Amino acid sequence: MNPTIGIIGLGYVGLPLALALAEKYTVLGYDNNPQRIAALHKGIDSTQEITSKELQAVNINYFDQSAALKDCSIYIITVPTPLKEDNLPDFSYLESASEVVAKMLKKGDIVVYESTVYPGATEEICLPILELSSLKVDSDFSLGYSPERINVGDPVHTFTNIPKIVSASNQKALATLTHVYQSILSAEVYQAPSIKVAEAAKVIENTQRDVNIAFVNELAMMFNAMGLDTNEVLAAAATKWNFLPFRPGLVGGHCIGIDPYYLAHKSKALGYTPDLLLSARKINEAVPHFIVDDIIDKLNIHQVPILEAKVLLLGATFKENTTDLRNSKAITLAQALKAAGVDLVLYDPLIAMDQTTVELAITNMLPENKKYDAVILAVGHDQFAQMDLLGLLTEKGFGYDIKAYFDIHPRIYRL
Amino acid sequence: MNPTIGIIGLGYVGLPLALALAEKYTVLGYDNNPQRIAALHKGIDSTQEITSKELQAVNINYFDQSAALKDCSIYIITVPTPLKEDNLPDFSYLESASEVVAKMLKKGDIVVYESTVYPGATEEICLPILELSSLKVDSDFSLGYSPERINVGDPVHTFTNIPKIVSASNQKALATLTHVYQSILSAEVYQAPSIKVAEAAKVIENTQRDVNIAFVNELAMMFNAMGLDTNEVLAAAATKWNFLPFRPGLVGGHCIGIDPYYLAHKSKALGYTPDLLLSARKINEAVPHFIVDDIIDKLNIHQVPILEAKVLLLGATFKENTTDLRNSKAITLAQALKAAGVDLVLYDPLIAMDQTTVELAITNMLPENKKYDAVILAVGHDQFAQMDLLGLLTEKGFGYDIKAYFDIHPRIYRL
Repeated sequence: MNPTIGIIGLGYVGLPLALALAEKYTVLGYDNNPQRIAALHKGIDSTQEITSKELQAVNINYFDQSAALKDCSIYIITVPTPLKEDNLPDFSYLESASEVVAKMLKKGDIVVYESTVYPGATEEICLPILELSSLKVDSDFSLGYSPERINVGDPVHTFTNIPKIVSASNQKALATLTHVYQSILSAEVYQAPSIKVAEAAKVIENTQRDVNIAFVNELAMMFNAMGLDTNEVLAAAATKWNFLPFRPGLVGGHCIGIDPYYLAHKSKALGYTPDLLLSARKINEAVPHFIVDDIIDKLNIHQVPILEAKVLLLGATFKENTTDLRNSKAITLAQALKAAGVDLVLYDPLIAMDQTTVELAITNMLPENKKYDAVILAVGHDQFAQMDLLGLLTEKGFGYDIKAYFDIHPRIYRL
Repeated sequence: MNPTIGIIGLGYVGLPLALALAEKYTVLGYDNNPQRIAALHKGIDSTQEITSKELQAVNINYFDQSAALKDCSIYIITVPTPLKEDNLPDFSYLESASEVVAKMLKKGDIVVYESTVYPGATEEICLPILELSSLKVDSDFSLGYSPERINVGDPVHTFTNIPKIVSASNQKALATLTHVYQSILSAEVYQAPSIKVAEAAKVIENTQRDVNIAFVNELAMMFNAMGLDTNEVLAAAATKWNFLPFRPGLVGGHCIGIDPYYLAHKSKALGYTPDLLLSARKINEAVPHFIVDDIIDKLNIHQVPILEAKVLLLGATFKENTTDLRNSKAITLAQALKAAGVDLVLYDPLIAMDQTTVELAITNMLPENKKYDAVILAVGHDQFAQMDLLGLLTEKGFGYDIKAYFDIHPRIYRL
């Protein structure tokens, strides 16, 4: 078996997958963004997940024209599944990718989706588009689903050592996909009994994290009202063997803050409103606003007029030690602080300056000798460990440590 | 230091504590239930947590008259904190116990509470009663709080190897309590920075479990609507390194189903309604009713008229391998099934027959040769592993396995 594999979508998910597959198979990579393809041709991954050296070590043909993929026998679709404005699933990327593949579909091909969706979506939304090719699933081609589990910025849990779920519309395709994925992974390949089970398994992983972080965020809001330090309480509770060490904070990114809405959408359509999930989402969405209110309270206590307050926000990304700005709630926090009227510097030393980051008013250089009435840590980049936070404060100034990143200090508040 | 220690309340928490302390100190045990004291004098623990041999191996004086405790220098209060009908905290046991101690309080004494409460309750509710003695905290006596972490029916995590949180109103008492508890534990004694932090740490442990079980119960309700087997989805998700393996099921007992209401009560009083916690409680409270509805659906599908249905419910306790019936939702389930009109046998082989269990219509003997239209497993006692569930079914009959306890079988539904 020596399939030619086409990857549709070369982002955080598709590019590492293409690299791994290219060690064993002929891989064609397609992305509809010509800048992305041009950069990859030059050996540059703008997401900074893959080094130039790694990119140059493998042989992948990159295309921004889909026709180049016509000779593949396995198509793997790794496009984003974001939200529309009203928190409804946005299937437009999946639909476009399915249309691209439908045009090239041949007898015997396998089409695999890795995008996170709700249970049933691959068969209800993607499959009908593939069948516009007038080929039929199982009799002509096979459908597969293998959810991505890429953990951006995590050097321990990498693509090759994270167990991978596979599922398919028939046993033969399941065997082929298991073989292909197993050939590039050191971890287990797990055969789910159906595509729907595989879809459900993926969407609940991130939803469970969302619920658990919402729980500690709700605790933080309660303990704020009770005059308790949340981190002191969590540290004491953590001495029990089965207490789960989640931490309060901002929940953003392309997964945890998004996926639960997919699941909730499908459930509501079937008549069951998942109150717990939606309540978790509401709490995590409220955190930036809760923090702004709390900081305004603190500025008042420290007798700093809001409209004269100089505030420094440390970290702009959705997660520590990455450059990933997708759905970052540090940005939401920055915007809400600005709307409240403070003079804000949003500092992230990991971010390269380009048009987007300039629009978001992110800087990667701290102005020299400037002092701040409040220095807020939003993202725990390792690099901040060397900062002299106290040295940045005005006489009335204070720190506000959302991640309990710095040592306890009387001049540093914590969420 | 050789204190005489009085334990007030000799139930699931107080008795194991008394036994452990009695290995090093003079211990006086008080319970206001004369039957409990009479049984303990005979070497019988009706909770079946402590064997007669263990009871007889230690030297504890048991009393149902509080005056006997007057010479103690440390009082440890281990009474229940249940709920009133409207899910409000019931402090009556704590208040009575505090009144008992207040009458005997002397200069230099330490009064320690182990009961689960909301942050602030020990100082706001118990301390004023102690001070009716006209002694004042810190100047005359000391206040301590050390939350119990007894895990009923768990042979691995036992009193002596579970880390224990201690807190006190002053440093001297904290040092004394740390010494006393450390002398009977192999695990760490953790000094919380305040009584309120210790109270908060305890109440959030059980609340976190409640939220996580509610999450999987909500999944079970969603997946029921989607036609998915929840256990298949959980098994696939569990292949991810950080997925938390909670299982759907009934949530009862004296802790998980109770403690979150204490926390919510205090938070609401301070103006913050914890929607996530309350939503979790609502879901877990709804599970028995969801199951009844589902079983009635299944009886209809199997063409068994509800009013003629013979149903067997396996397990009556709130937890597997215990005899603990406190706040058991298996009982709630049994009552709801009976209310629906089925002919129900509630079988629990671990339960001794007495007035309470007869009133609850629990039997510990299965009628011979009787067949059932539905056999429901509610509690995963080890003893059920030997049962031939399929052999108990009528021709139309089916199994319903709430705990995914039995192997998958076409005639056994799962929650």
